[in-house]
Amino acid sequence: MPRMRAVQVKNANGPFELVEREVPIPAAGQVLIKVQACGVCHSDAFTKTGAIPGIVYPRVPGHEVVGVIEAVGERVPDWQAGQRVGVGWHGGHCGHCPSCRRGDFITCSNGQIPGISYDGGYADYMIAPFEALAAIPDDLGAAEAAPLLCAGITTYNALRNSGVRAGDTVAVLGIGGLGHLGVQFAAKMGCRTVAIARGADKGPLARQLGAHRYLDSTTQDVAAELTKMGGAHVILSTVTSAQAMSAVLGGLAIDGKMIVVGATPDPIEVSPFLLIGARRGIQGWPSGTSIESEDTLAFSALANIRPMIETMPLERAAEAYERMMSGAARFRMVLTTGQ
Amino acid sequence: MPRMRAVQVKNANGPFELVEREVPIPAAGQVLIKVQACGVCHSDAFTKTGAIPGIVYPRVPGHEVVGVIEAVGERVPDWQAGQRVGVGWHGGHCGHCPSCRRGDFITCSNGQIPGISYDGGYADYMIAPFEALAAIPDDLGAAEAAPLLCAGITTYNALRNSGVRAGDTVAVLGIGGLGHLGVQFAAKMGCRTVAIARGADKGPLARQLGAHRYLDSTTQDVAAELTKMGGAHVILSTVTSAQAMSAVLGGLAIDGKMIVVGATPDPIEVSPFLLIGARRGIQGWPSGTSIESEDTLAFSALANIRPMIETMPLERAAEAYERMMSGAARFRMVLTTGQ
Amino acid sequence: MPRMRAVQVKNANGPFELVEREVPIPAAGQVLIKVQACGVCHSDAFTKTGAIPGIVYPRVPGHEVVGVIEAVGERVPDWQAGQRVGVGWHGGHCGHCPSCRRGDFITCSNGQIPGISYDGGYADYMIAPFEALAAIPDDLGAAEAAPLLCAGITTYNALRNSGVRAGDTVAVLGIGGLGHLGVQFAAKMGCRTVAIARGADKGPLARQLGAHRYLDSTTQDVAAELTKMGGAHVILSTVTSAQAMSAVLGGLAIDGKMIVVGATPDPIEVSPFLLIGARRGIQGWPSGTSIESEDTLAFSALANIRPMIETMPLERAAEAYERMMSGAARFRMVLTTGQ
Amino acid sequence: MPRMRAVQVKNANGPFELVEREVPIPAAGQVLIKVQACGVCHSDAFTKTGAIPGIVYPRVPGHEVVGVIEAVGERVPDWQAGQRVGVGWHGGHCGHCPSCRRGDFITCSNGQIPGISYDGGYADYMIAPFEALAAIPDDLGAAEAAPLLCAGITTYNALRNSGVRAGDTVAVLGIGGLGHLGVQFAAKMGCRTVAIARGADKGPLARQLGAHRYLDSTTQDVAAELTKMGGAHVILSTVTSAQAMSAVLGGLAIDGKMIVVGATPDPIEVSPFLLIGARRGIQGWPSGTSIESEDTLAFSALANIRPMIETMPLERAAEAYERMMSGAARFRMVLTTGQ
Repeated sequence: MPRMRAVQVKNANGPFELVEREVPIPAAGQVLIKVQACGVCHSDAFTKTGAIPGIVYPRVPGHEVVGVIEAVGERVPDWQAGQRVGVGWHGGHCGHCPSCRRGDFITCSNGQIPGISYDGGYADYMIAPFEALAAIPDDLGAAEAAPLLCAGITTYNALRNSGVRAGDTVAVLGIGGLGHLGVQFAAKMGCRTVAIARGADKGPLARQLGAHRYLDSTTQDVAAELTKMGGAHVILSTVTSAQAMSAVLGGLAIDGKMIVVGATPDPIEVSPFLLIGARRGIQGWPSGTSIESEDTLAFSALANIRPMIETMPLERAAEAYERMMSGAARFRMVLTTGQ
Repeated sequence: MPRMRAVQVKNANGPFELVEREVPIPAAGQVLIKVQACGVCHSDAFTKTGAIPGIVYPRVPGHEVVGVIEAVGERVPDWQAGQRVGVGWHGGHCGHCPSCRRGDFITCSNGQIPGISYDGGYADYMIAPFEALAAIPDDLGAAEAAPLLCAGITTYNALRNSGVRAGDTVAVLGIGGLGHLGVQFAAKMGCRTVAIARGADKGPLARQLGAHRYLDSTTQDVAAELTKMGGAHVILSTVTSAQAMSAVLGGLAIDGKMIVVGATPDPIEVSPFLLIGARRGIQGWPSGTSIESEDTLAFSALANIRPMIETMPLERAAEAYERMMSGAARFRMVLTTGQ
Repeated sequence: MPRMRAVQVKNANGPFELVEREVPIPAAGQVLIKVQACGVCHSDAFTKTGAIPGIVYPRVPGHEVVGVIEAVGERVPDWQAGQRVGVGWHGGHCGHCPSCRRGDFITCSNGQIPGISYDGGYADYMIAPFEALAAIPDDLGAAEAAPLLCAGITTYNALRNSGVRAGDTVAVLGIGGLGHLGVQFAAKMGCRTVAIARGADKGPLARQLGAHRYLDSTTQDVAAELTKMGGAHVILSTVTSAQAMSAVLGGLAIDGKMIVVGATPDPIEVSPFLLIGARRGIQGWPSGTSIESEDTLAFSALANIRPMIETMPLERAAEAYERMMSGAARFRMVLTTGQ
Repeated sequence: MPRMRAVQVKNANGPFELVEREVPIPAAGQVLIKVQACGVCHSDAFTKTGAIPGIVYPRVPGHEVVGVIEAVGERVPDWQAGQRVGVGWHGGHCGHCPSCRRGDFITCSNGQIPGISYDGGYADYMIAPFEALAAIPDDLGAAEAAPLLCAGITTYNALRNSGVRAGDTVAVLGIGGLGHLGVQFAAKMGCRTVAIARGADKGPLARQLGAHRYLDSTTQDVAAELTKMGGAHVILSTVTSAQAMSAVLGGLAIDGKMIVVGATPDPIEVSPFLLIGARRGIQGWPSGTSIESEDTLAFSALANIRPMIETMPLERAAEAYERMMSGAARFRMVLTTGQ
């Protein structure tokens, strides 16, 4: 049997281990992907820490995977070996629960997530169900496409479905793996784009990404500054600090909405007075499906949007993860296999 | 000069006083209304307690006013003496601030509220700017129309603009002045309607108002019950307890939204996890304009919706207010002048 | 092998024939349904006349089918023998074309329609893929549920997705199999409902169905009458006369929209002037999916909406079809098998 | 009394005349504008030909006016002499008709249009009611701002309110005064933009304006080409040929919508089959209000969008009009006063 490398988490809060395994064989409805690149996402912490119950260990993390189809199982329509494909957070759906019957695959009651429900992309090969596959355009490299499959789709989908219109003001809270893509998407959607982060140092990068304005939340009253600009029609919150989210709500315009894509167990405190008078709101957004990944890739190609990445070889996965968690990455860590 | 009775609040947290005053004269753009009925709203507490800064005392409360035009000032198009009219929370707008230029009069930067910005309907006569007037249909009595001008429009407008569709599930949190109308509106919009209140005693009334289900939040896990039903597409929150709002958020369906119309200074605690996975949201809603009051009255007439009211003569305003504040009213107190 | 009756169309424009066939056996992904009732729809003419290219004859029409699952093939999740089910226009989808990947099954590139793509419900038994099944609530009889699966879902779905709000004015053009349900849905959605048909005789029935107003298009200027009422926010056109559609467009309100559900090869003539000034529009609507059939059935049960039907036994299918085509049915013909 | 030049239309279908008049004096609610530039719009033909009934002649055309406030009448809030302002198609509204009460000023029953209801901008000075004024940003010149007040706002407003999302495909039908702005707006909104016109010669210009694709309707089957691309989510029709509009409808994507902004008395022929299966639609759009002109100017400044103009001095108005009507203008004629 052919062998491959994989980086697995041994158990909840256990170490990353580089191991050798057999290359798996795709069952009916599945494909085998030769992995070329895999982004390191904050949500990989769910696998690392076991924060989501029911994870079976050891488990290989990774849900921003780009590679080439190596083999195809039975009953896989349309996909062939040799095609470039990606897999993101949407790692499969059952097709028959109420959500699936409504075509809302991302809320499938039996939905699967690569790296959580089954082994993900921190490896030379991985298995995925066909419905999780997104075709990768020729003009996007594997490493630069990978973060678009979770960080990218999440922010693009959240923004394009927010009701925001070109010319409206969008504030992006947090300029990290998600936020630095959110700023680019908002700017290329024709929105007046405000980047918000902690410290002055991210200001120049934010402007380079297309932000028309940068606010440093450690020294500026962000809500007041937004209000002076007429208020933000959308605040895309990519941070995991509930307090930071509460602090900017007052900067929403009339009918403005904060879209929350960064998960945290702490509650956001929301003043009814802030909501009522100006019809403000908050809403969550959870990523998107495989075909919406294709939309994200297509828009990124059209508008010339690319993640800023730092690559590391697969075997340095632990280091890449630490760098991401510490906030040092500029702005997304991507593991490469050299394949 | 002709004289009239008025019930004024002497100062912030001061007493209600029944006084005699001169009947005022309408200036340009204003009409004089002979008041027939005035609802007693929880927001009258803003006048009573001075919670909204800048109220000039003594001040006559009352923003659910129905009466007859007695006299018309200069530059008042379309309105004539003798017409039946009502005035609600939308007590006038400037016409030239950014909101008004966008036609969004309810968020006017210089907006006026009867009983707060100027003397309201706890009186035999009141003055109102013409843009605040709503025509009252012939087939609605003054006392039963009055609560529709604030409690009614707020719940009807919130619901009809929520995106809810006939057949969806609507939960109404709180069955008081607003909620007992919200239940009727939701039911007559074709929604599966769940009434939620504290205690078992309001259950039969809720069903009589059209609720398909009643949940007693003191003995039932409301979020869990709603989830068993498939979740609420809309929860219309009419309560002023932030804790009660937080407690039901988990009962929202996928894409469900809580609409907050009850103001309270306490923050609602909102879990990002609850929001993100199922794209849930929260939004505030602030009442509506004078022509939307006409919409509310028209729909109430069409669908045979009426507030349940207890009437008291104007001179018992203090007693009516206490009864409303204590939650004893079934469900709206209305002051009548006998005119 | 067990035998069954079926009414087949021999060839395009050929006769209906009552034949005996073997009861078919469900393949993987399919169920066998013992048919109890099947509505006769105007779209059965596609099968009768061969207007849709590619129909393989002989073909059994019928896409408003209610019955009981008799047998279940391999790989059919969730469904069991003995369950009451229905099948409508949505007779199956491929699951992997672009539309299916977007969850938009009704526009599937490989979509199947009972009675057109495969044998339908004019028979004692029929085969359907599991994704086409809608559960039937206990409190709905087979014959009264059948028309809800095409005539019902089409009008309910068109209306609930039209953006119409309770209190708005809805006009239903044509009071036949679809229109008589559209009137009921609109009224129970809280809309001011105007029924429009040819001749005075349908007026009383229209009012009985819940219409607030009836317009006879042979003697009244419908567009002018609607305009007097303030215009229709939605006109649901169920007729197949393009001329009749053009004639009422002027009766749309500002932002009003005509929704076309009745297919005809003739073009509707639309004046740009009518559209531009008041932002009016026209849109088509094509029915809905199996779970939306369940929504339709649930709303019908909630709001006590039932089709008005005339039943005939299966063997009188040709007669039922003629009665439907001639416009004599009051308002839907349903075939019953006696099973 | 001070004197000024004006170009008036003597009577319906009469000649343009350069005349000398007294500079008018603003009444209450009005301002006097010293005109610097005025765009020449196809809708000026309404004034030239008398196609809109009720025009009082002689009449000065022009509703794309930029200048400086020279004097301010009574009861004009917020505006002062010396401010740079523009006036577009929205030339005033009554403030009390049903549309105005709903804040929908552009459909005001008593709405005024410069150059039609009162003398417009083909002159050294003009009078306008204050609600028609749009502030002009410092960084936009008068001549380049002028076409944004009608050609610009119409296309920008139609697109941003169409529901189109960044990444969607927008086709712009007709590349003239409106279309050449529509292409720029669509591209800067992040849409895949297809320009459609007659002949090959406009192709290079279309690409320069940001179009990703150019279709020559004289040699290509536009609907088929759009369909190959996946269909257009929005077709913005700026032409006045109903036949050209009908011909491209088949190129709409699922849920696609044609937005009609070009008026013509000929009817568009619309096939119900084209509409129903894919939920396609058509809608009209009529320009926008003065504050929406400000939005248009702000977005144009943000996204660096400018009309391509040819300027002529006021006294050559007749020549400019002929050049516009013949389709020779590249792409908008603007009259300048030299003030």
